[in-house]
Parts: sequence; C-alpha cells; structure tokens
Amino acid sequence: MYRAYAAVTLDGKIAKHARHFSDWTSREDKEIFRKELAKADVIIVGMNTYKTAKKPLSGRNCIVLTRQVKNTKCEKPNICFCNPKGKHPKDIIKEKGYKHIAVIGGAKIYDWALKEGMMDELHLTIEPVVFGKGISLFSEPTGEKIFELRSVKKLNKKGSLYAVYRVK
Amino acid sequence: MYRAYAAVTLDGKIAKHARHFSDWTSREDKEIFRKELAKADVIIVGMNTYKTAKKPLSGRNCIVLTRQVKNTKCEKPNICFCNPKGKHPKDIIKEKGYKHIAVIGGAKIYDWALKEGMMDELHLTIEPVVFGKGISLFSEPTGEKIFELRSVKKLNKKGSLYAVYRVK
Repeated sequence: MYRAYAAVTLDGKIAKHARHFSDWTSREDKEIFRKELAKADVIIVGMNTYKTAKKPLSGRNCIVLTRQVKNTKCEKPNICFCNPKGKHPKDIIKEKGYKHIAVIGGAKIYDWALKEGMMDELHLTIEPVVFGKGISLFSEPTGEKIFELRSVKKLNKKGSLYAVYRVK
Repeated sequence: MYRAYAAVTLDGKIAKHARHFSDWTSREDKEIFRKELAKADVIIVGMNTYKTAKKPLSGRNCIVLTRQVKNTKCEKPNICFCNPKGKHPKDIIKEKGYKHIAVIGGAKIYDWALKEGMMDELHLTIEPVVFGKGISLFSEPTGEKIFELRSVKKLNKKGSLYAVYRVK
C-alpha cells in the first residue's frame, strides 16, 4: 500500500518556494504525520525534502530519490539513495518485502509517484491558509485524475482538515 | 457581506486553462452554487467568466469587472460593466444599498477581491480530482493569509467537500 502525505494550502500549495520547509503547518498535522510515518515500513522521499528532514528521518528506512547516483547507494543500512532510471524503487520494495510505503514529497516526487502507480492513497492536510504563489502539490498535467474521499476530519479549532483520498 | 465562491481541485486549480469552463464540478456543487447566487443582491464577476455564464447570469444583478470601459456602463439596468480604476465597485454597492455580494471569479477577480477587502468568506467546493497543471485559485503572492474554517460538509458519495472559510 502506497500512501502519499502532503500538507496543502487552500490554493493547493505545498510551499512558498523550493527552500520553504513545512514550518507553516499546524501542530496537529505534524503529530499525525509523525504517527503515520511510524507505521510505514519505508519512506520514499526526494533529495531536497530529505535534506530538510534528515534528522527525523535518520532512524527510519528511507529510499531517497536522486539523480546523484547511478543506480542505488546505501549510506547506512536504512538510508538508500536511488536513481529510478537506474533501479526502480519498486524493485527495492519487492526485494525487501516492504508492505507499507509512505511517499512524502516534495513536488516532483508526488508527480512521479502518481505517474508510476505508487500512490494508492493521498493523505492531505488542508490548512486554512493561502500563499497565492508557490509550489503546487502537482505540477505535471494529469488530465482529470479522479480521486475518492475515504474520510475527513477537523484537526483543530481553526479548521485544518485531514482528508484521506483513494486514487482511482 | 462579501462571499467568494470557487470550486477547486485537490491541487488548488479552478480550471485547466483560461477557456476551461467549470463543467468538471459535481452536480451537487452546481446546485449549491445556484442556490447561493439566488441569495445574493449582486454578483461580482470578471469579463471572461461573465461571457461563459452570460445566460444563467442574465436575470441577476451583476457588476462585470473589465478594462473595456472607462468607469461604468450599464447594458441593462441589472448588468453593469465596471472598471475598478475608474469607479470602485464598492461605490456602486454603497449607492445601490446591496448587502449580500457574491464574488464568483475567475482567478484575477479572486486575487483582486482578497486584496481589496471584498472577501469576508470563501466558499470552496473541493472536488476529488487533480489537474496537475492549470489555473490556480489565487496567483498573486499573499504572504501567509490566514483563514478560519466555519463549516464543512460532504456533498456526495465520491466526496466533494463544501467548506466555508472566514477570511481573517
């Protein structure tokens, strides 16, 4: 089961710019995110996002997607850098027997995971804030990709929503 | 009370491109939209959106924002074209005594209404679909504009959400 996690603004942005870390999300989102990651067998993350979250991810199984390696290169037993053009992460997942996979971005990784059929669910925290300009959740045309809402809950007084969608 | 209405995808898009009309939204969204517009004293709409919705809007009071007139020019008693640089819509609203104002887009109009303090509430229908690329709800940087959720409801089985936000 591939689950993608993202916090978005009301206008579908995940950050103001490429170096904008997710310090703008609610405490409740961070708590859920931490708990959800703890349930995952492995985390798929892009290099930029990995760099900004190196410490909290250090104890977890991670596949870090990057063009800086040819195939795969493991820094520690649990942190493997992987170039999908050399070796597909699906092969690593199969070899290791991972069942629960968390995809945590950034933007290019969401595009890629959706395209590669590596997104069964999309877990969206919709924060009641607007950036106007910024990096969108997706950036490559998807046509009209259909999702289905599985659950939604209000996380706090200001109204952050946690919505789980199934990718159809 | 200024209420803005928009249907957005999960990635914050209101359309795939400038000539893409809102044929992609759910039946339930269209019903709510129609009922909400019936409650409004006047509708503020951009020229492009007006053109695509001329017929359903023909019986309503409309202020159509455009640079094609210098100040204001009324086609019929109820349809007035207005250039905000010549005459501000707020003045027309005051003169006419309108209380309930609906702002229905498109994109530039949402930016403009938010900036001009003409958005007390934002009524968002969040449709479970992704475009990837398209026209965002907002396109001008807003900093980190804070909203507050007033209510949310699920409109149908696939999980279109109707969320009402207060602009803080």
